[in-house]
Amino acid sequence: MNPAPVVADLASILGPDGLICDAAEKRRYEAAARYGDGAALCVARPADTAEVSAVISTLVRGRAPFVIQSGHTGLALGATPDASGRQAVVSLERLVELEIDARDRVIEAGAGVRLSALNAALEDDGLFLPIDLGADPMIGGLVATNAGGARFVRYGGMRRCVLGLEVVLLDDAGTVLSLGRGLRKDNAQLPLEQLFIGSCGALGVITRVTAEVQRRPRQTATALITPAGDVADLLCRIEAELGDDLAALEGMSRNAMASAFSHVPALRNPFAGGHVPDYAILVELCRVAPALDGEPGLQDRLEAALGHLLEEGLIADAIVGPAQPLWALRHALSEGLRAAGPVVGFDLSLRRANVFAFRAEAAAMIARDFPQYEVCDFGHIADGGVHFNLVDRSGEADAATRARLRHAVLDLAVDGYGGSFSGEHGFGRAFQDDYERYTPAPVQALSGALQGLLAPRGDAPFRLSPPFRPTGDR
Amino acid sequence: MNPAPVVADLASILGPDGLICDAAEKRRYEAAARYGDGAALCVARPADTAEVSAVISTLVRGRAPFVIQSGHTGLALGATPDASGRQAVVSLERLVELEIDARDRVIEAGAGVRLSALNAALEDDGLFLPIDLGADPMIGGLVATNAGGARFVRYGGMRRCVLGLEVVLLDDAGTVLSLGRGLRKDNAQLPLEQLFIGSCGALGVITRVTAEVQRRPRQTATALITPAGDVADLLCRIEAELGDDLAALEGMSRNAMASAFSHVPALRNPFAGGHVPDYAILVELCRVAPALDGEPGLQDRLEAALGHLLEEGLIADAIVGPAQPLWALRHALSEGLRAAGPVVGFDLSLRRANVFAFRAEAAAMIARDFPQYEVCDFGHIADGGVHFNLVDRSGEADAATRARLRHAVLDLAVDGYGGSFSGEHGFGRAFQDDYERYTPAPVQALSGALQGLLAPRGDAPFRLSPPFRPTGDR
Repeated sequence: MNPAPVVADLASILGPDGLICDAAEKRRYEAAARYGDGAALCVARPADTAEVSAVISTLVRGRAPFVIQSGHTGLALGATPDASGRQAVVSLERLVELEIDARDRVIEAGAGVRLSALNAALEDDGLFLPIDLGADPMIGGLVATNAGGARFVRYGGMRRCVLGLEVVLLDDAGTVLSLGRGLRKDNAQLPLEQLFIGSCGALGVITRVTAEVQRRPRQTATALITPAGDVADLLCRIEAELGDDLAALEGMSRNAMASAFSHVPALRNPFAGGHVPDYAILVELCRVAPALDGEPGLQDRLEAALGHLLEEGLIADAIVGPAQPLWALRHALSEGLRAAGPVVGFDLSLRRANVFAFRAEAAAMIARDFPQYEVCDFGHIADGGVHFNLVDRSGEADAATRARLRHAVLDLAVDGYGGSFSGEHGFGRAFQDDYERYTPAPVQALSGALQGLLAPRGDAPFRLSPPFRPTGDR
Repeated sequence: MNPAPVVADLASILGPDGLICDAAEKRRYEAAARYGDGAALCVARPADTAEVSAVISTLVRGRAPFVIQSGHTGLALGATPDASGRQAVVSLERLVELEIDARDRVIEAGAGVRLSALNAALEDDGLFLPIDLGADPMIGGLVATNAGGARFVRYGGMRRCVLGLEVVLLDDAGTVLSLGRGLRKDNAQLPLEQLFIGSCGALGVITRVTAEVQRRPRQTATALITPAGDVADLLCRIEAELGDDLAALEGMSRNAMASAFSHVPALRNPFAGGHVPDYAILVELCRVAPALDGEPGLQDRLEAALGHLLEEGLIADAIVGPAQPLWALRHALSEGLRAAGPVVGFDLSLRRANVFAFRAEAAAMIARDFPQYEVCDFGHIADGGVHFNLVDRSGEADAATRARLRHAVLDLAVDGYGGSFSGEHGFGRAFQDDYERYTPAPVQALSGALQGLLAPRGDAPFRLSPPFRPTGDR
C-alpha cells in the first residue's frame, strides 16, 4: 500500500482541522496510557458521523490499516497505533454532541463525550453514568470495551446502560447503522447493538450512544474491614445483610497495600498501629433516598451490620469512616506497585466462588517457579474480578521469563479455573496472542465469520479470524 | 419435501420415548397459549444436547421446517407450529438438568427447566430468578425471548441474568457452541451469547443456560395509588424517594380495571366507595435485608413517602395494604378484558416519557376511527412497557377492521413515537408481517445476513431475511 493517496483523500474529506500529520501534534494520539506507545501514519478527526463513514470507507477501500480511538485510556492497546507508523488513527474526540432527557433518565451522546464531562452535565439533574474507573475515558470507548469498574456490583457495566447505538461498519461503504431504539424493553428484532458492546473496534466504529443513566446517591457509607475467616462466606453474609445498598466491595492484598504505603508519600495508613492485615475489603454502601425522620442513616446501618459480623467472628476489624481516605488507599495501589518494581499485570475474571482458591494456587506456583515475583493482587471481588498483579522484586526478569510467567498464570486462570484473561479491559493489540491462545476454536471461528460479515476487508484494528498457523498447537 | 424419511430418521435418533406422532399426544404441543393453534408433523423430544444436535441436523439437511418449543407459553406464536401440518416441533422439555451454586448465586439449567421448578429448587437457599410473569415458561424460552415482566424496573430482564449459553446452530451439522464462561465480567472475546438472547429461535436452539440468580426479598410493601396530575412527573418523584427499593410500578387504566371488576367474580374492588379512578398505579417495594432493631420497616417507609406525595397533591389517594388483593386486581386484568369482548392486544414499548402522550393520541384516534373499540391499557410504566389492549364492545369488527386497527396503532407507536411493537413478547409467527413492515431495512438486511451465517438453510422458525416483494413499499 502506498499511503500517500489515502492521506490525501482523508485531507480532502476532513479539511485542515480534521487531519493531523505533524509529528509533534500526533504524539498524544500515539502515547499509550501506561505502556506500548506507537507511531501513527496520521490522525483523522472526523467532526460527525458522515465524516466517520467517509473516513472508514476511504481507509477500507485503500486497504489502509487503522485503529479507532476515543479517550485512549485503555490498557489493551486497542486504540493505540502499533510501532510500524503505517496505521492511521481515527479519533472520535470531536463527536461531542450531548442530549439529556432527565425525566426519562436517558442520554444520547457522541462517542467523544468524556465520562467526566457527561457527569458534570448530568449533575444538576441529580443523575450520573454509574461507571467508576481509575481513568476518564470517552463514552465510545466505554461501550466498545463494555467497561465495568468498582460499582459493577450495584450498577453492572456498560451493557446494562446501553439502549441504542449508531455504528459505522468497517466495509467499503462505511455503512452507518442505527441499532436499538433507546427503549428499556425491545424484543421485536435481533439485538444487533449487543454485538458491538465489548467488540473493541473489531466490527465497527461506535459513533453515538443512547444510554440509561442513574440517580445520584444522596447517602453513602464506607468501611475498611479485615476478614477473619473464609472470604467467600463473608461476601455471602455481606450480601444478605447489606446487599440492597451495596455499591462496592474492593479486595486488597497485604502486598498491594504495603507497596502503596511504602511508595505513595501522601497516603496515610488507616490501620490501628499501622499493622497491615493479610487482606482487607473496602465496603461502600449508597442510597438515592435520604434517611427519613427518625430513621437510622446509612452509616448507622453499616455500623450495626459490621457489629454483627464482628460478634460472629467473621471479621477481625472494621474501620467505618469518611470515604476519601479509604478510597485513597484503593486508588494508590497501582501507583504503589509500579514504584515497587516492574509489574506483570492481569485483569482476570473468575467465578467469584473460585477467586480465593485460584489466588492460593497461583501464589504457590509463583513462589515455586517465579520466586522473584511478589503477588500484589486486588480486585472487585463481588464480581470475581481480580487485578492479579505481580511485581518483580529483583527487577531483573527478562522477556522470556515474563512470557513464561504470563502463560503460567493464564493457563491456571483460564484452563484451570474457567476464567477470562480480560475481565474488564477488553481486548486489543496487547492481547492478540492471548486471544488466539485462550479463546475456544469454535468461538474464534464464529467471531471471525462475523468480522468477515461486518468488517470484510480484514483491516479491522483487531483480527478475530483464526490465525493462519499450523493447527494442533491448541 | 417428503416428510416420511425425516420422521423415520428422527425416530431412529430418539427412540420410542423421544418422538410423538400420535394425534392425541401431539395436541398439547400444537395448542397455543391463547390463540393460533397449529398442527405438527411430529414432536421430537431430545433428551440431551447431543440429541438436539442430531435432530436439528436431520431437519436442516432434510429441508424440513420446524419450530423450537420449551414452555410454550409465548403469545407471539414463536413456538407453535403453523396450520400446515408440515412443521416438526422440537420440544426441549426433557432438558431438565439443574445445578445450583448458592455461594456464587449462579445456576446452570437445561432449557426445559420450568421457572416454577427453578424457583422451588432455589427456595431453601433464599434465592430466585427474578423474572415475574403471568405464565410459567421454561428457561430456554425465557432466554430466547429475553423475557422481562413486572419486576424489570428492579432486576432487568433475562439479558441481565444470563452469564453463558449452550446453543445448537441451525446448520447442517447442528453445531453445538458453548458461549460465555459463566462469569460476571468477561470482555476477552465477542459477546456471541448476546445474539441469542432475544433471538426467538431464529438463529439456533438454546439448550443450556448459565445465569445469575438473586436473593429473595425478606421485606415487601405494596400500595395502590391514584395519580392526581402528570404521571411522568409522579414517576420521577417515586424514583427519587423510593427508587432504591422499587420492585414494580404497574399502571392500570379505568377501563381495564372496570372490566376486571365486572367479569372476574372473585375480585374485590379495593377503592373507597367502589369508585374506579381514571388511572391507578400498583407500587411494590422490596428489600433483601430485614429491618434492623428500631428501624422503620419497609411499609412504614412506603407510608411516609406516600404521605409526602399526598400532601404535595401529586397523588389523590393511596391504599397501603397486603400485597395479595392488590396484585389480584393486576392479575385479573387480562381475564377481565377477554370476558368483555374480542381483544386486539399490543405489547408496546415506548420511551417512558412518551407513554402518556402516546396513550392520549392513540385513544383520540381510536375514538374517531374505531369507535366500537375501548382502550383498556395497562403496563409496566416505569420501563415504558404498555399492554395497549383494545376491546371490541360491538363484538362485530371483521378481520379487515382489525387489521386496519393494528396498523393504525402500530404506525403511531413505531413510526410516530419511535416505539417497539414487541416490548417483551419477542417475535414469532404472529409478528412476521409486523417485523417486515416496521423493522428498518438495514436492520433487516444485517439480521438476514446473520441468519444466513448461523441458520444457513432458511428453515429457521422465523424468517429474518428481507421479504422478497417489490421494494418501495416502505
